[in-house]
Amino acid sequence: TANKRLLVLPGDGIGPEVMREVRRVIEWMDRRRHVTFSMEEGLVGGAALEATDSPCPDATVESALAADAVLFGSVGGPKWDSLPFEKRPELGILRLRKELGLFANLRPAVVLDPLVDASSLKPDVVRGLDLMIVRESTGGIYFGEPRGIETLPNGKRRGVDTEVYTEEEIARVARVAFDLAKKRSGRLTSVEKANVMQTGRLWRAVVSEIGKAEFPEVELSHMYADNCAMQLCARPKQFDVVLAGNLFGDLLSDLAAALTGSLGMLPSATLGAPDASGRRRALYEPIHGSAPDIAGKGIANPCAQMLSFAMLLRLSFGMEEEAAMIEQAVEKVLAGGLRTADVMGPGTARVGTSVMGDAVLREL
Amino acid sequence: TANKRLLVLPGDGIGPEVMREVRRVIEWMDRRRHVTFSMEEGLVGGAALEATDSPCPDATVESALAADAVLFGSVGGPKWDSLPFEKRPELGILRLRKELGLFANLRPAVVLDPLVDASSLKPDVVRGLDLMIVRESTGGIYFGEPRGIETLPNGKRRGVDTEVYTEEEIARVARVAFDLAKKRSGRLTSVEKANVMQTGRLWRAVVSEIGKAEFPEVELSHMYADNCAMQLCARPKQFDVVLAGNLFGDLLSDLAAALTGSLGMLPSATLGAPDASGRRRALYEPIHGSAPDIAGKGIANPCAQMLSFAMLLRLSFGMEEEAAMIEQAVEKVLAGGLRTADVMGPGTARVGTSVMGDAVLREL
Ligand SMILES: CC(C)[C@H](C(=O)O)[C@@H](O)C(=O)O
Ligand SMILES: CC(C)[C@H](C(=O)O)[C@@H](O)C(=O)O
Repeated sequence: TANKRLLVLPGDGIGPEVMREVRRVIEWMDRRRHVTFSMEEGLVGGAALEATDSPCPDATVESALAADAVLFGSVGGPKWDSLPFEKRPELGILRLRKELGLFANLRPAVVLDPLVDASSLKPDVVRGLDLMIVRESTGGIYFGEPRGIETLPNGKRRGVDTEVYTEEEIARVARVAFDLAKKRSGRLTSVEKANVMQTGRLWRAVVSEIGKAEFPEVELSHMYADNCAMQLCARPKQFDVVLAGNLFGDLLSDLAAALTGSLGMLPSATLGAPDASGRRRALYEPIHGSAPDIAGKGIANPCAQMLSFAMLLRLSFGMEEEAAMIEQAVEKVLAGGLRTADVMGPGTARVGTSVMGDAVLREL
Repeated sequence: TANKRLLVLPGDGIGPEVMREVRRVIEWMDRRRHVTFSMEEGLVGGAALEATDSPCPDATVESALAADAVLFGSVGGPKWDSLPFEKRPELGILRLRKELGLFANLRPAVVLDPLVDASSLKPDVVRGLDLMIVRESTGGIYFGEPRGIETLPNGKRRGVDTEVYTEEEIARVARVAFDLAKKRSGRLTSVEKANVMQTGRLWRAVVSEIGKAEFPEVELSHMYADNCAMQLCARPKQFDVVLAGNLFGDLLSDLAAALTGSLGMLPSATLGAPDASGRRRALYEPIHGSAPDIAGKGIANPCAQMLSFAMLLRLSFGMEEEAAMIEQAVEKVLAGGLRTADVMGPGTARVGTSVMGDAVLREL
């Protein structure tokens, strides 16, 4: 089973060092499970800027289009913070989402039992938490036109962004969320501000229509985004699958991740439309950023990047068994008491990135 | 000292019943402190809709314009949920903000010691929390044009909203936030998505300029909205004053309120520009909504509405002493162990709306 084409984009900050641990997992798969990946490595973010003057060079986009799946690290850092808009490392990920048509960003927020105490929330509030945010990721205010800053006749500046959603854009990401809800608890919460936004009104209408016509067995409810932020904080376990547009999804998925207290553990997937053979383009990345403050110190948590690879195996290649093996190996290591600094707790032993990697490989 | 013109707008749901307790406080002020208010009562929200076919009748706007301060209850309920956009009770508050020019929404999130356990967060994470969100409230995506839902030539719908901010709109609300920060800890966090939004870029630039030119003594930092949601959840006490636009402010202030676990305790103020004599138009309202599920049962927490009145005394009339009296009376009642159902904890006695009101009056 060769010809699983992977594009690996380590990016900036801790990206390269956590990716190193994933490579070890990939090598192990190669040797022990006889799964052959054809891997290419590419440039993105600040790393790409330094080398090519673009945070997302055409060569990277081409390689991504040719790959079966992209494994992404993280981008950005203080070094590039003052660059003009078109040069920002973040454009790396934004352009990839757009050019690959990756419209459905799946962000699980899971509290593993050994990590309950890492949360800032009371243990009872988060124990067993397992929710999934489905965020639209190629539309909305991130890309709508017109956008820009102009100078008015009175000499004052004026900034504009446009939130746009078409019925089709809403419908296709809603289908992904309904599908997931169907496989999970059968409950979906769709989030917008239909009380003040026109895109919110359309969002609510289209999601309701898709639900009625195609997923009558899923129990759909609607919630305003401000209330959802509140409810996530107060009673997160009331949620299973949560669907939101690009901007609300950005905030709410970060909030959901923060609830777990273990950002360094959370993977994500961003999927495109299925082609004729049912394959979807896809990119996998940890939820944490490039963490420039700890980059290069060998203390970053490699688990989120490893679990992103597990998601890749499951969703892009249907390798459920191998995905579960990685997930279980990570859980076992945690249960055994090893922790990177970010998820330390009383009675656990602090280890660095590569010792954590060693331990996961040993479990495998 | 007559001629303090108050417009009271109880609105829907629990609005009228919690407002009743405030009236008792006002009567007490009248008798004991010889402060005379000239009070008018008006219609807003669903209550106004039933009577006049508009959620914010012109008469209400006129009375509000004539008043020195507006005390607002809450609006909305399932009864009006399926009405068309122009008829929604929420338009009551939106129109008032806009017509009175109330651009600075001040939303404190405070954890009172007796209520530490009401939070879903660990006591250590929230004990002593005292932050203030300053949310822009007459601009941004709430009001920008064009907005609407159109049908495209292919028969599909398309929704549009526009986020617009001018330099002046950003500057005036930034000044309110800097002023507050100066009086408090000297620290201000300004929030946007300058990494993806043009209004965010302008926001960051203008806030930086105002800070440098007018408030060099305030320590200003900038944070992306998604990160802010995360940080509020993980380490809320790192914040003092947080400044955000209308939409981010909506989510983040609700999140900040949820951190406290005691929504029924939180007041808010929305201020306009100072006139020649330094007076600002202002509206005061609890952060909680109309809570239709418990309306009419006599169990709602009247504290947020009472504390909104205390904010009114302080900010609109400079009556610091009276404001503090009300705040201390509420704190004492809580310390004494009385609680409405929403903030119940072990070892406390559950009381209804009017018994809570009685207790506060007794302390006064
Ligand atoms: C880096 C940034 C542009 C990005 C976003 O806002 O989408 C990030 O916050 C994310 O959620 O992936
Ligand atoms: C009722 C609604 C329109 C309003 C808003 O979104 O501004 C509310 O959530 C608030 O925060 O006051």
